[in-house]
Amino acid sequence: MKKIFFLLAIIVSTTKAQDLLPQPKSINTSKGAFTISKNTLIRLSLSSPELNKYVQRFVQRFQNRSGVFLNTTQLQDTLSAHEILIQTETFVDTIKLGSDESYKLEVNQNKIIITANNNIGAYRGLETLLQLIQRTGKTAYVKSCMISDSPRFPWRGLLIDVCRHWIPTHVIKRNIDAMAAVKMNVLHMHLTEDQGFRIESKKFPKLHELGSNGNYFTQEEMKGIVKYAKERGIRVIPEFDIPGHTTSWLVGYPELSSANADYQIEKNYGIFNPSLNPAKESTYSFLDEFLGEMALIFPDEYIHIGGDENKGIDWDNNKKIQKFKDKNSYTSNSELQAYFNTRVLDILTKHGKKMIGWDEVFEESLPLSVAIQSWRGKESLYSFAKKGYAGLLSNGYYLDMANDLKVYYENNPLPLNADLTQTEKELIYGGEATMWSELVNEKTIDSRIWPATLAVAERLWSSNENCNTNAFYNKVGAISNQLEEHGLIHLTNQTILLKQLSNQSDVNKFQPFVQLLEPLKGYERHRFLKYTTHYPLNRLVDACYTESFRANDFETLVSQNCKTGICKNRDEIKTTLATWIKAAEQFVKVGNQSQGLMEAKLLALKVQELCELAWRSVNSPSELKELDKDRAQVLMLEIENFKLDVKFAPIQTMKRLFN
Amino acid sequence: MKKIFFLLAIIVSTTKAQDLLPQPKSINTSKGAFTISKNTLIRLSLSSPELNKYVQRFVQRFQNRSGVFLNTTQLQDTLSAHEILIQTETFVDTIKLGSDESYKLEVNQNKIIITANNNIGAYRGLETLLQLIQRTGKTAYVKSCMISDSPRFPWRGLLIDVCRHWIPTHVIKRNIDAMAAVKMNVLHMHLTEDQGFRIESKKFPKLHELGSNGNYFTQEEMKGIVKYAKERGIRVIPEFDIPGHTTSWLVGYPELSSANADYQIEKNYGIFNPSLNPAKESTYSFLDEFLGEMALIFPDEYIHIGGDENKGIDWDNNKKIQKFKDKNSYTSNSELQAYFNTRVLDILTKHGKKMIGWDEVFEESLPLSVAIQSWRGKESLYSFAKKGYAGLLSNGYYLDMANDLKVYYENNPLPLNADLTQTEKELIYGGEATMWSELVNEKTIDSRIWPATLAVAERLWSSNENCNTNAFYNKVGAISNQLEEHGLIHLTNQTILLKQLSNQSDVNKFQPFVQLLEPLKGYERHRFLKYTTHYPLNRLVDACYTESFRANDFETLVSQNCKTGICKNRDEIKTTLATWIKAAEQFVKVGNQSQGLMEAKLLALKVQELCELAWRSVNSPSELKELDKDRAQVLMLEIENFKLDVKFAPIQTMKRLFN
Repeated sequence: MKKIFFLLAIIVSTTKAQDLLPQPKSINTSKGAFTISKNTLIRLSLSSPELNKYVQRFVQRFQNRSGVFLNTTQLQDTLSAHEILIQTETFVDTIKLGSDESYKLEVNQNKIIITANNNIGAYRGLETLLQLIQRTGKTAYVKSCMISDSPRFPWRGLLIDVCRHWIPTHVIKRNIDAMAAVKMNVLHMHLTEDQGFRIESKKFPKLHELGSNGNYFTQEEMKGIVKYAKERGIRVIPEFDIPGHTTSWLVGYPELSSANADYQIEKNYGIFNPSLNPAKESTYSFLDEFLGEMALIFPDEYIHIGGDENKGIDWDNNKKIQKFKDKNSYTSNSELQAYFNTRVLDILTKHGKKMIGWDEVFEESLPLSVAIQSWRGKESLYSFAKKGYAGLLSNGYYLDMANDLKVYYENNPLPLNADLTQTEKELIYGGEATMWSELVNEKTIDSRIWPATLAVAERLWSSNENCNTNAFYNKVGAISNQLEEHGLIHLTNQTILLKQLSNQSDVNKFQPFVQLLEPLKGYERHRFLKYTTHYPLNRLVDACYTESFRANDFETLVSQNCKTGICKNRDEIKTTLATWIKAAEQFVKVGNQSQGLMEAKLLALKVQELCELAWRSVNSPSELKELDKDRAQVLMLEIENFKLDVKFAPIQTMKRLFN
Repeated sequence: MKKIFFLLAIIVSTTKAQDLLPQPKSINTSKGAFTISKNTLIRLSLSSPELNKYVQRFVQRFQNRSGVFLNTTQLQDTLSAHEILIQTETFVDTIKLGSDESYKLEVNQNKIIITANNNIGAYRGLETLLQLIQRTGKTAYVKSCMISDSPRFPWRGLLIDVCRHWIPTHVIKRNIDAMAAVKMNVLHMHLTEDQGFRIESKKFPKLHELGSNGNYFTQEEMKGIVKYAKERGIRVIPEFDIPGHTTSWLVGYPELSSANADYQIEKNYGIFNPSLNPAKESTYSFLDEFLGEMALIFPDEYIHIGGDENKGIDWDNNKKIQKFKDKNSYTSNSELQAYFNTRVLDILTKHGKKMIGWDEVFEESLPLSVAIQSWRGKESLYSFAKKGYAGLLSNGYYLDMANDLKVYYENNPLPLNADLTQTEKELIYGGEATMWSELVNEKTIDSRIWPATLAVAERLWSSNENCNTNAFYNKVGAISNQLEEHGLIHLTNQTILLKQLSNQSDVNKFQPFVQLLEPLKGYERHRFLKYTTHYPLNRLVDACYTESFRANDFETLVSQNCKTGICKNRDEIKTTLATWIKAAEQFVKVGNQSQGLMEAKLLALKVQELCELAWRSVNSPSELKELDKDRAQVLMLEIENFKLDVKFAPIQTMKRLFN
């Protein structure tokens, strides 16, 4: 019954006034509207190449959204009668932690004015304006209003793991566009892992040459990504995960390792033993050179050094490392890792950078300048804040868990009851959604990041009072659709994958059934099947959206209309069930077309039968025989326990129809 | 009635044996089949990093196509009972004009063997194998056969103009994948134009810095494209169009120009006056340095120098150039351009390259080593061949004309009646489809290149006897669908664009109407509307496929079943018409959602009414009153003359229903 409380509207064809995501700080509407016409002009008070480029892109999207072709897309510098004016005071070249992102947006009949301290605030305001465009009948317009907006948290990030599966530049860039569209401001790139070393090093070329199977960002490409992000007001934080998670480093440079082994790029998933050797001085000179090289590519003040999940087994088995521990009176591996961290911190400081790492980087002597990103959770995060460390929340934002959006949305880094002082609260910089890529490739990653990350985007930008789960669900479908303009394939890849799986059958016929399926949540999918980096990600589960909005819609419909098995608005419920029956039937027909579909064929048969019973029950509950009711119970049990990596999402709602 | 002769099958869900594109030289089938199972193994007789990579990609696609997940995707080096063996003698690092691309493919119950002289032949054979995979019911298999194959022409190219609209690297790469899938072997990149200079020059950085609006390939990116193509057996030919078409060069280096002007990147389309100055020695030293730099990026022996459409107006207006002409006794601008060409040829020769250019590079003193690409046509091409020049045909392969596939397909560079000797025939190297980009951007270009280029791919690979228009139309839909696996959006972008145009309406409802529309053919679209590089390409016409396969299907249906207005199989025809009526009706409903749709709303209304009349006529011709028949004639006239940049494709077939 997890979805019972959402009031979900079936996606409507016109955008409503409240479809702003993230919700702005304050919005006051008034009568009247700015009508968008061919003659609408766009003016800048302060021109800069970067802002001009943003506005030029805005103009194309403005035409797309409004459906109006402008007579001129040339930016103006003098006043016009009917104009959009972008007013900024200063130009900020590169966004930093804490840069002013606030803006004001005023709409009246003749003018739209975006006022911001700098270009970054203007970017945020332009995105709000795009979401405000409404179309009905023959006109496009923006309703008169006054918006005043600024972010709740200064660090609103998305981590993309480009190591477990390679994610190429153009996929990163379209995701940057989507981030900017919902005002996120940090792209955290997880660049090195056991399964791959994904950035070119000119100083140590064997890192990418031997550690990547040829899939890595050249420095030029990475600079291009950084520039692309900067032009959209987004910081790029690189992560070089050390001392564990380093198998791919050791393929080319085994002298850095803690064990005397022959290293291969890891193909399996999990936690592995390979670790840098903290007892050798040469490890630090290597890191000094390498991080110095990287520091020049990434302008942000922070570099992420990972630091997580180093089990220390290779340390325990290395006599020299043990001797080093003894000599320095370190009684545990975490003390040894603390020493390692201190040395790395010195290196970063020397290169003008601040350090950030996962929970494990913490130990008592850690300087307060280090920030901590918590995968462990709020308890851990708050304990650091109480000690004076700044931090980010990532626990609860793990996109690879394929959770319902609600789970991400309701994960509030600072709920009202957080037991922290005001000063401590200010150390909670925000959070990051994390897209670990064991189970996504360049084709499917969009559909795991979006729309899920929309939940995180709003949670981190909007105030507690402005976050509301129902309101969020009411608008998320429309905003998710809008993201397609950036070339994201989070929606269309389903069709493409299903076409392939079904041998180019007519996907429309059975897609409504697939849209009722959800991937196994959490890490259950790894338990269902042993994945490696080589296993193809073109199973039925890869074609499913992480959350079935159709199942949600049905839940709403049933909860509004049915009580103890008796329903009002029976026709609507019956129509939905009839669609499902037909789609499941069609799925059965294509079910032999591939191994990937065949596994779900029996499930589709059961769903079809259950929906038929449900249809009859809604139609006339009294006519359903005991035998039918028993059969429904058996089917529901079988469907719930069906052994597969996808689940039939509306199962709980179905149960209610037979109560 | 242009489409009356095609026997078009509605795209069927199972691939048939004959769905090979391009059609191989010879194919003998026998009883039995190789059944694809989890245990199928893949073995290489001769391993090389590049062939191994190709085969690794093949394995992923093999799993996609067959729907079977293999137990292991590791390549084998020892014999197995049930295997695919790839047998090559030698390794060719970089494909050249005339490289051996032949292969043999033998399929029996236990083995599939691809035998080729080299890795490039193996690539071609692997693509054929992928097309041979069949799926029915629970199994995937390849029917026993023996194929022997080699290309008809050694030069089978696609030109992509990245200048009029910028086309980024990832779009180029997915098109390279699609080219390889249908055995094309030359990517011709049109890199410089009045509207943009699209490659980085380290020697003359103002070329790309001032000539590109920031959209250009860095040298590293271009090397990446060249490598990507080479790994798929595809040559990359760069074109630097000189002396005309050079406005973008002159923005940064006005000293190269023939006029004393202030140059801006051109925003309009057409033929412009700016031209390099052929009378200044410094022009040649510039070109020497520049082309020398470029020669190192492109390993192919040919460099394309354009040479087309130089009107010479700026030459006529320049007194020094006139003086230079007089001094050298040149009586025409073409003689002057011949001198220019000779100088450029010397430069290319010095850098180890051969020259190729458009028809205009020819004049009597041109050395026979220069190849000529003909936009003018076969007459021109043959006249060059008779003089001893090698050449390519591009006339008739202009993709920007949005012609029906038949037009491209039936454009045979060497028809049986070609009046050339055998030696002259051998000088016709092949041809190139040309994708000029005035009316395509990075989102729509796929849909203009594909499926149209499939016609060119088969025409240039397969022998005269193996080319058959009906057979081509029967398979092109299935092959076009398969191309989606490379990330092409030639099919899905229609949905995305229509969603945007219709304000996120349910596109399925009205898409069948849009799929009956075709863009204006030839260059009519430019006459309908004045485009510049800034005009948004998100009109209804941009969402249309270039040829309506649905209209073709209907034509087949009607021509097979109807005579003088009386039809057999009435239900099938009526069902089709009913679908169109409904879709047109739905289109009218969303027609107000944007300017782009609104223009076609009235057309949809007329189509709806006409289809209703046609439905009634097919249902019972005698019951249609004279008034109705008159109305149908009026509607057909109005639809045919409807002033818009799209046309209702089935109009000729409709006429036959009322005869």
